[in-house]
Amino acid sequence: MSTCVSASTTLYNETVTKLREITALEGISGLLGWDEMVMLPAGSSGSRGAQKSALAGVIYDKKTDKGLGEALSILKQSTADLNSIQIANVRDAHKEYTRSTAIPKELAQKIALLESTAYEAWVESRKTSNFALFAPSLQEWVTVNRQRASYIDDSLPAYDVLLDMFEKGMTSVRLNEIFNEVRSGLVPLIAELKTRGTSPDTAWLQGQYSTDVQAKLCRQIALDLGFDVEKGRLDVSVHPFTGGSHPTDVRMTTRFKEHDLTEGLTGAIHETGHALYEQGRNLDDEWRDLPVSSAMSMGIHESQSLLWERMVGLSKPFQHYLLPKIKEFFPSFPDVSTDKLYEAQNKIQEPSLIRVESDELTYTMHVILRYEIECGLIDGTIQVEEVPSIWNSKMQQYLGVVPPNDAAGCLQDIHWAGGAMGYFPTYTLGAMYATQIYEHAKRSIPDLELHIQNGNFSPLKEWLNSHIHKLGSLYASGDELMVAVTGKPLDPQVYLSYLRSKYSEIYKLP
Amino acid sequence: MSTCVSASTTLYNETVTKLREITALEGISGLLGWDEMVMLPAGSSGSRGAQKSALAGVIYDKKTDKGLGEALSILKQSTADLNSIQIANVRDAHKEYTRSTAIPKELAQKIALLESTAYEAWVESRKTSNFALFAPSLQEWVTVNRQRASYIDDSLPAYDVLLDMFEKGMTSVRLNEIFNEVRSGLVPLIAELKTRGTSPDTAWLQGQYSTDVQAKLCRQIALDLGFDVEKGRLDVSVHPFTGGSHPTDVRMTTRFKEHDLTEGLTGAIHETGHALYEQGRNLDDEWRDLPVSSAMSMGIHESQSLLWERMVGLSKPFQHYLLPKIKEFFPSFPDVSTDKLYEAQNKIQEPSLIRVESDELTYTMHVILRYEIECGLIDGTIQVEEVPSIWNSKMQQYLGVVPPNDAAGCLQDIHWAGGAMGYFPTYTLGAMYATQIYEHAKRSIPDLELHIQNGNFSPLKEWLNSHIHKLGSLYASGDELMVAVTGKPLDPQVYLSYLRSKYSEIYKLP
Repeated sequence: MSTCVSASTTLYNETVTKLREITALEGISGLLGWDEMVMLPAGSSGSRGAQKSALAGVIYDKKTDKGLGEALSILKQSTADLNSIQIANVRDAHKEYTRSTAIPKELAQKIALLESTAYEAWVESRKTSNFALFAPSLQEWVTVNRQRASYIDDSLPAYDVLLDMFEKGMTSVRLNEIFNEVRSGLVPLIAELKTRGTSPDTAWLQGQYSTDVQAKLCRQIALDLGFDVEKGRLDVSVHPFTGGSHPTDVRMTTRFKEHDLTEGLTGAIHETGHALYEQGRNLDDEWRDLPVSSAMSMGIHESQSLLWERMVGLSKPFQHYLLPKIKEFFPSFPDVSTDKLYEAQNKIQEPSLIRVESDELTYTMHVILRYEIECGLIDGTIQVEEVPSIWNSKMQQYLGVVPPNDAAGCLQDIHWAGGAMGYFPTYTLGAMYATQIYEHAKRSIPDLELHIQNGNFSPLKEWLNSHIHKLGSLYASGDELMVAVTGKPLDPQVYLSYLRSKYSEIYKLP
Repeated sequence: MSTCVSASTTLYNETVTKLREITALEGISGLLGWDEMVMLPAGSSGSRGAQKSALAGVIYDKKTDKGLGEALSILKQSTADLNSIQIANVRDAHKEYTRSTAIPKELAQKIALLESTAYEAWVESRKTSNFALFAPSLQEWVTVNRQRASYIDDSLPAYDVLLDMFEKGMTSVRLNEIFNEVRSGLVPLIAELKTRGTSPDTAWLQGQYSTDVQAKLCRQIALDLGFDVEKGRLDVSVHPFTGGSHPTDVRMTTRFKEHDLTEGLTGAIHETGHALYEQGRNLDDEWRDLPVSSAMSMGIHESQSLLWERMVGLSKPFQHYLLPKIKEFFPSFPDVSTDKLYEAQNKIQEPSLIRVESDELTYTMHVILRYEIECGLIDGTIQVEEVPSIWNSKMQQYLGVVPPNDAAGCLQDIHWAGGAMGYFPTYTLGAMYATQIYEHAKRSIPDLELHIQNGNFSPLKEWLNSHIHKLGSLYASGDELMVAVTGKPLDPQVYLSYLRSKYSEIYKLP
């Protein structure tokens, strides 16, 4: 028996210790974020700012530690003694190190400054619906983002570098291929539903629903879906989100409106999906608190929230579970059929000017529109001053409506004000991954929809745990994960045929 | 006009930046502590442990930073350009730096190990009431504490160095002087009350008090006393405490028992006193987030909780405010006089074996007994194996009772198991400071007791804000603060005459 441990194994183990220390500090940062949204007294934002800044400085120092960088470079070159999990750890940690160290101090300071000035300009610009006030900031973000991308990796198109920060392994070439196919199928479907479809009745759903009772109902649903309160918390906050400090400390928040039962329900199921992904992260020793156990990408994270929200929560079988639950908490809820509840919950929103108020069909086109514009801004084919007119003409083309002003148009989202370019596509990628994963789950889990109908969600949750959650960031891209899980890369036809078949039925297309 | 800034001013300002960074990180540590007690899901203690350890490591690195130490040494020698606030900052920061760096790594590791092994031994030892199981750990703590003290400052008696960590500027010589005087006055008073006094009736207070209603009542009282919810939170936890992350984020927790109204009330008022001190800390620029604005000592902190709990909450005038409040929340509360409520709340507990269950008279003797023993252990006049017999004979001498076993005697407290020697005296110092401060407040604030009777607590709160809270750690000792606030050092006669007069009346001494 040999007690000899290879040099790269020793180096790997030392590196793991450093990476876990960073994970622990980032977990604290996650807790501070949750606390700020849910618990922090109003008068202490100043002190919290100083605390966040001090912690960010500490994390920055650890993430840009020269010894860590050198170790990762060596390990990246000598993977002979490492297994696939360890190789994935090194790959992702090295990428993160490169990102953290690539940006020169001057640019980092410029970005930090721009984050606040551009946000202020956007708020003012949106308030007065005056794009000209925001245009200079947007122009600066375009310039700064190009510079940032080139420092990180100047061998790739700038947009691809930005995109990769949110959706690991995705490229604009692949995204064009995917989104072109989606657009071609979806634009005519939306137009057809609008002109020839019969909109479902939702008037009966209107009413007063106590937010306290909604919170209790949604807590029950989250628990039924599999949220583990031993490893997380459920609270109410102004902006619903899922955060926390660790897979064993996942903190999900929800929000309820007295006059809208559906929004609270879908929101709670959506956040539960995010939370189940977080709680399902791999805690085995080779994975625990390391890059390989973290979320694959924003798109895959969103796929988990949307799978539970749309594939499950807004499906026909789920209504058999949901309707009696609603009546249990709201005894005076109308006596309707599960089909009627299903249809009402799946109504397409009109006029669909605002992304966050739109439904799954029109949301997709909102995202594609934004992707096309931000990609054009970065590669120089679209100029900042053209944004409002291009926005409006694409809205007309894709959704058949034109915003009355820029506040309801190209100024509606906060993302660009914060410099996030490459983020929008992850919403629709998430919706598409969700559909393809769910189609495959239906084939893999016997009687899945019957289980859902009966409120038995554990077969699906456990399948997702082992096929998605536990795999974390092992693969290099969403496509690779899709191949591993479903046997093929992301396929727009799966998404399109799901939408076509679902909405043709609900809207009774002839 | 000169724009010249002296070298020491520049160095001071640089040092302040470092000290504030440490404060910010310690604030995060405070938040983690609160979260762990109030919010953390049960299944995540492991990850929280890793987070606390990572943060502790970061704070240790910042606190022992060589550059910080050098700057503080220089500033301590060249105070010509510094004002008294800045000098106090340097004094306390330098002391803290010395403490943080003094202990060699081997000893620090031994202490860390002993913290867990001694705790486990104590738990087992108390469970079986077998002192022999804990004795070796206690012996190790004595040895380790002597070593620790000698590394920090070998020119002082070891106990004084330990004491100073909890009660800045206090010495065993001064403490002997104080406690001897207290003991001489108190032992005969307790004996006299026991033999010749008439114990007040408390049977009528027994009943069922909904803990939810108690929580609402105590929240109202905390707000009336001046707790600012814009700069803090009030929650319920298993162990009541006051923590948080900053003077603008003070988090106080309370606990209630269904069958005991008094314990919840006094506990809530006690924690409010701690919280008001924290919220009252100086936020002016020269003080903010620096050592000089921190709490003076454990004893002074305790003086603020005990001032509100005992001097105010258990006083006669307060019952005029409290009784209608109780009846508002508990309409079926018996119709009694405020005097009867006052007397019932101030009953001396018998047989007074357990410190945490005792009253203000017997508590004092519990503390003096522990002080005498731990001081003797450190200076070598008492051996570990003698502790049980000395404990029991002092109990007989001071309180007239002997514990039936060591679990109810020398094994009852957790402090020594954690190596804390020099902590116990701060409880009684706090009680004494509180009495002397309150006596002076009554002379300084016109109609103070009338204000209290009317539920108007702001004159007292504001007086404490400006005379105690805002002064933070400016002075070098509690005695110095007492001189500044009350005109004389801590005077045991003030405490004794308060106790004598109060209890002679309640117990109707002939």
